[in-house]
Amino acid sequence: MKKFLNNPEDFVDEMLEGIYRAHPEVTYANDDKRCYVTANPVPGKVGIVTGGGSGHLPTFLGFVGKNMLDGCGVGGVFQSPSSDQLLEVTKYVDQGAGVLHLYGNYTGDIMNFDMASELAELDDIETAAVVGNDDVASSVVGEEHKRRGVAGIFFLYKAAGAAAAAMKPLAEVKRIAEKAKERTRTMGVALSACIVPEIGKASFQIGEDEMEIGMGIHGEPGISRKKLAPADAVVDEMMDRIFAEQNYAKGDEVAVLMNGLGGTPLEELYILYRRLGQLMDEKGVKIRHVWLGEFATSMEMAGFSISVLHLDDELEPLIAAETNTPFFKHFSN
Amino acid sequence: MKKFLNNPEDFVDEMLEGIYRAHPEVTYANDDKRCYVTANPVPGKVGIVTGGGSGHLPTFLGFVGKNMLDGCGVGGVFQSPSSDQLLEVTKYVDQGAGVLHLYGNYTGDIMNFDMASELAELDDIETAAVVGNDDVASSVVGEEHKRRGVAGIFFLYKAAGAAAAAMKPLAEVKRIAEKAKERTRTMGVALSACIVPEIGKASFQIGEDEMEIGMGIHGEPGISRKKLAPADAVVDEMMDRIFAEQNYAKGDEVAVLMNGLGGTPLEELYILYRRLGQLMDEKGVKIRHVWLGEFATSMEMAGFSISVLHLDDELEPLIAAETNTPFFKHFSN
Repeated sequence: MKKFLNNPEDFVDEMLEGIYRAHPEVTYANDDKRCYVTANPVPGKVGIVTGGGSGHLPTFLGFVGKNMLDGCGVGGVFQSPSSDQLLEVTKYVDQGAGVLHLYGNYTGDIMNFDMASELAELDDIETAAVVGNDDVASSVVGEEHKRRGVAGIFFLYKAAGAAAAAMKPLAEVKRIAEKAKERTRTMGVALSACIVPEIGKASFQIGEDEMEIGMGIHGEPGISRKKLAPADAVVDEMMDRIFAEQNYAKGDEVAVLMNGLGGTPLEELYILYRRLGQLMDEKGVKIRHVWLGEFATSMEMAGFSISVLHLDDELEPLIAAETNTPFFKHFSN
Repeated sequence: MKKFLNNPEDFVDEMLEGIYRAHPEVTYANDDKRCYVTANPVPGKVGIVTGGGSGHLPTFLGFVGKNMLDGCGVGGVFQSPSSDQLLEVTKYVDQGAGVLHLYGNYTGDIMNFDMASELAELDDIETAAVVGNDDVASSVVGEEHKRRGVAGIFFLYKAAGAAAAAMKPLAEVKRIAEKAKERTRTMGVALSACIVPEIGKASFQIGEDEMEIGMGIHGEPGISRKKLAPADAVVDEMMDRIFAEQNYAKGDEVAVLMNGLGGTPLEELYILYRRLGQLMDEKGVKIRHVWLGEFATSMEMAGFSISVLHLDDELEPLIAAETNTPFFKHFSN
């Protein structure tokens, strides 16, 4: 196992110690380092809480900051945070306007967020929930509720975060998050496995010349495993699935997230993006915003995902809003 | 070779096409995509040009932007750009106040920058040069001129870039870059090799339980190859070398760059940074600024480097200045 580690059991807590050392803009609630929150809550603003397993940096905690999220329950590697932790984060970020729970579609997370929500209501904290399910590969059209949440939740964070920062009420922030969710799709492909520190070996095997289309960010099986194709052909295949679900008219605008899963060099993401740009040109669709880099990773997994948000006049300025977290900065100029 | 590629020979040019598609803030001079320049040169400002081989994103071109660099000659993977390309970039960025060439200590780069400088003088463009050599592992004290330039050049870019943005004259921008250079040291360690696309196989072999201390960013041999140690022990060994060359008094301040070489997850960088923070605490040294992530990579190489800039009252505000490039954004709030 080629990792820089001390005791594998301390992986998450030592990572968090490093993060708190580096970034005084964030802190933790209830004396529990896994209850990760902004150090600067905004009075009267709707709070937004996410949460999920570790091993995906900068997802999830990396999007806590100005104009995005207010808190994050931090689980073990690929494990849900506890309902108690999510409750404590919810209590901390509540500033009198209620709290939106915004997280990915995984059984453990849903169970623990639901429980935290019920307990928060007992404390007279109003909550609402939106569950991201952008991964096209995890089930067919008509069964979107079975789809996993992956990198595309970034757009939900950004849109809902900007709406909350504009002091919109909870119902409105929820509506914005729902709308961004309806209009976001992601497809991913993996070339190699990752290693969970406490397990110490690759989570699955894949041939030296193979790729797996649609693999999840914890190594969940994808749609097909096949011989690695040229970069342009890979993008074409992925975008076929996204185009089939997003009905573009000429002149429409999109936001794109080209996300590296951890082990794929940035150079390759730009080669892949070149092809994506050509395909959008062919359709007469304008890429109004694009971010390339590592946003939702599986530690050292090689691979990438493409997330596309089909913009409209309401979502565009929310996506364009300036953002400043320790892990993600967006100037509008 | 598990890479997302089309024809390996097109790796650099397709990457550049993707970059120009994504980032309208940059463009190219002389109708040559490898003559990478800002789209918004500032009249009367000293221009700063860097250059070097591809395969290190965001180094080198990623630091062209507001308050940093103005242009970059882009070479093939691990190859120097040509003197003609460097000349064209120099001509484009010259805004009447001269041009600083600021790049890493590699034979090919020195030769081509020197030639470009001579040709620029014939065009009445004043130039000056500062050559980064922050890599402690490449030679002993007293022979610093033999040391390679690696990730620490980031601090030279940031300090010189802020000085140029403040409309300082060329001699002053050069002096600032020299001062940042004198006060910057880097140590790196690698766990795995990278694959040059046109070669298609790993550039060297290293055992499954081995690390190489002091390896260069093109796989140049390091100081020692040994069994992979716990994260804290690796940081201790690296920092011993840096502490031996930087003489801190209690209360001194530093800026730190924890740089992933490409294949090492961000989680691990924070675990490593935790230890670095403890060591600085023990010495009573304050980490005034820290950046963690991928700044100077070797494509998919696993490993990391630590760069430390020993701040003083002149350098600190320059390092603190806001910066906005397509690849690196720094808000001061």
